Parts: sequence; structure tokens; C-alpha cells
Amino acid sequence: MEDLKKFISAYTPVDEEDWGKIAASFEERTFSKGEAILSEGDICKYFYFLRQGIVRFFIVNSEGNDITKFFTVAPYFFTSKISFNKCIPAAESIEAIEKCRVLQITLENSNKLMAVRTWNDFTRKLLHEIQDFTEKALVEARTETAEEIYKKLMSQNPGLLNRIPVKYLATYLGIAPQSLSRIRRKIALDAKK
Amino acid sequence: MEDLKKFISAYTPVDEEDWGKIAASFEERTFSKGEAILSEGDICKYFYFLRQGIVRFFIVNSEGNDITKFFTVAPYFFTSKISFNKCIPAAESIEAIEKCRVLQITLENSNKLMAVRTWNDFTRKLLHEIQDFTEKALVEARTETAEEIYKKLMSQNPGLLNRIPVKYLATYLGIAPQSLSRIRRKIALDAKK
Repeated sequence: MEDLKKFISAYTPVDEEDWGKIAASFEERTFSKGEAILSEGDICKYFYFLRQGIVRFFIVNSEGNDITKFFTVAPYFFTSKISFNKCIPAAESIEAIEKCRVLQITLENSNKLMAVRTWNDFTRKLLHEIQDFTEKALVEARTETAEEIYKKLMSQNPGLLNRIPVKYLATYLGIAPQSLSRIRRKIALDAKK
Repeated sequence: MEDLKKFISAYTPVDEEDWGKIAASFEERTFSKGEAILSEGDICKYFYFLRQGIVRFFIVNSEGNDITKFFTVAPYFFTSKISFNKCIPAAESIEAIEKCRVLQITLENSNKLMAVRTWNDFTRKLLHEIQDFTEKALVEARTETAEEIYKKLMSQNPGLLNRIPVKYLATYLGIAPQSLSRIRRKIALDAKK
């Protein structure tokens, strides 16, 4: 579990006694490519540390269309937050779009760990970071075009775009797959100029 | 400070001893209509409980346009999170768009209160709630039209729309003021049918 320890230590100093309690609270699991990690309507029972792979959060809207909400790329944590924290049916689904290796912790164990300084501090800082990401993405979604957002993704995470199917990327950007293909062609042409 | 106590108690049971420490950490302040609470580039020194009024978060983009990011309506907490938590210059501004009455707490006092169960628990739950709001707004911004989002605001918060100038509401929705006026006329016409 050295990867988890290293991940946490980027947020807060890891006390050795605390680490023993944290490590004992997680269990390993693997999801194969395409496997459902959570289906809408089920309760999300775990908070996951994604050690390897990419997961996709999605909803099916009232017209029956599959809309990608977010991706989580290893190494990072994910869960369906409202469902996990309140033990209520999830309003979203999560799937592994590559083979994924995770470490998972139950709500009961996570709540127990709240008394452990390292965990309390880490989860608070992580939540702040996620909130900052989400807020930035929201302002982007309101003020930038899909092409601008796509270009930003390309420069920040060029390898990632090849690992995500176009159909998922398109709904993530809020556009039709055809529009995304057009944007990609235009960018490729511009690059040749 | 009964309003603050009542607000916190909606998230977590308020221990009386804890409450004494919390109440002693806040101070009162008033901002007049139009007053800057935070200017981009300054460090946000407080976490604010908004007792009365509405504040507006905004940025000025590379074309020099004023873009509204969010509104906070009393009673609720607000701050420029990254700036406040990391003591770095803010990448956004905050202004009072009505006369605002607040209770403010410094980062130093807030950090001291993290050892107080009621405050630790409350701020964690509040942060989760803000994250949920932001995530919902992000999915909305990606999947719904400005008209749909405006109609939702109308049904959830009809009084609020009259308190916010059209120019701010328009950039919040990511559209030109003229487009918002057109949407408003269309909705008024539809209502008469």
C-alpha cells in the first residue's frame, strides 16, 4: 500500500501510528474493463483509492442519453459522494473504462478514521481540492467553448485523450460526437499549417 | 449570534461548550451595497457567515469582461476558498450586491476550532454540501440550455431573480444580457398562453 501512503503524504504529514490504522481499514479489489463499479439506484458502499486505470461517472438523462459527468484517473480517490455519505441510492453510475485496481474503504471504517488526525486532515484537504477542480470546471463550462476546453485537456493531459473513447469525451464536453470529430480535424489541420 | 447557532445545528448537534468557543471566534461586520468584500489579487482573510444580503463572485476574463461565477444568498457561508485556505492572492473578486451583514472568522481561529468537534463536523458537512451544489451546477452547465437553467432558478428561487441585476444574471448563465431579455420575454409570453 505504499502508493496510498505516498498519495496521502502529498497532502499531510503521515504519522506512523495513524498509518497503521489507515492501512488496516482498506481492502484491495480489481474491476475489469467495462465493469460497473456502481449502478444508478444502488447505494455506493465504498470510498475508493484508484491505483490504476480510469473510471467514468455518467447519468442517463430524460431522453435516454448517456451523459459523462467526470473521469477519475489514477492515482486519485473517487466515490459517489452523496450516496456514500448519506447511504442513499446513487443518482449516477460509475464504470471502469480500463482494467482498474483499487483500494476500498467502507463508510463505517472511514467514519472511525475521522478520529485519526492524518485521515481527518487528508480527507478535508482532498475535499477542498476536489471542490476547487469542480468550481474551475464549472466556470470553464459557462465561459469557454467545447473547442477551448478540449485544447486545454490536450495540453494538460495529452496521453489521456487516447485512452478515452470519443463518444464519452463528447458528452463530457456537452457536444455531439460529430462535433468533437470536427474539432479534432480542425486542430489537426491547424497544426499542419 | 443565534442565527449562526441555528445554521450550524441544521448540520450537526451543537455542543454547548463547543458553541462558546465558536461564538467567541467570530466578529460582526457590515458591507454596504456595491462594496468590495474581496478584490482579485488580494488575500481573502476571512471565512464569512452571511446573515443578511447577497454577495456575487466574479472574475474579469482576458477580454476584460466581468463574468459572474456564483451568488451566495443569506443565510450561508462563503469565502474565496483557495485564497483563504492557502493565504495566496485570490483569482476572483467578491462584492456585496445588497447591504450585507456578516460574521467573520480568521483562518487562524478557524484552524484552532478544527480541534472542536462541532466545528470540525460542521465545516466538513458544509464543504460536502457545497461540493454537491457545484457538481450539480457543472452537469447542468454541460447538459442544459441557459433557458432551462433560468426556468429552474425561477421555480426554486422566484424572489431571488428580482434582487439580482440582469447583467450579472446573464454572465452567470453564460449568455449575453440581450439573450436573457429574450428568454424572459419568451417565458412571459408562454405564461400568458
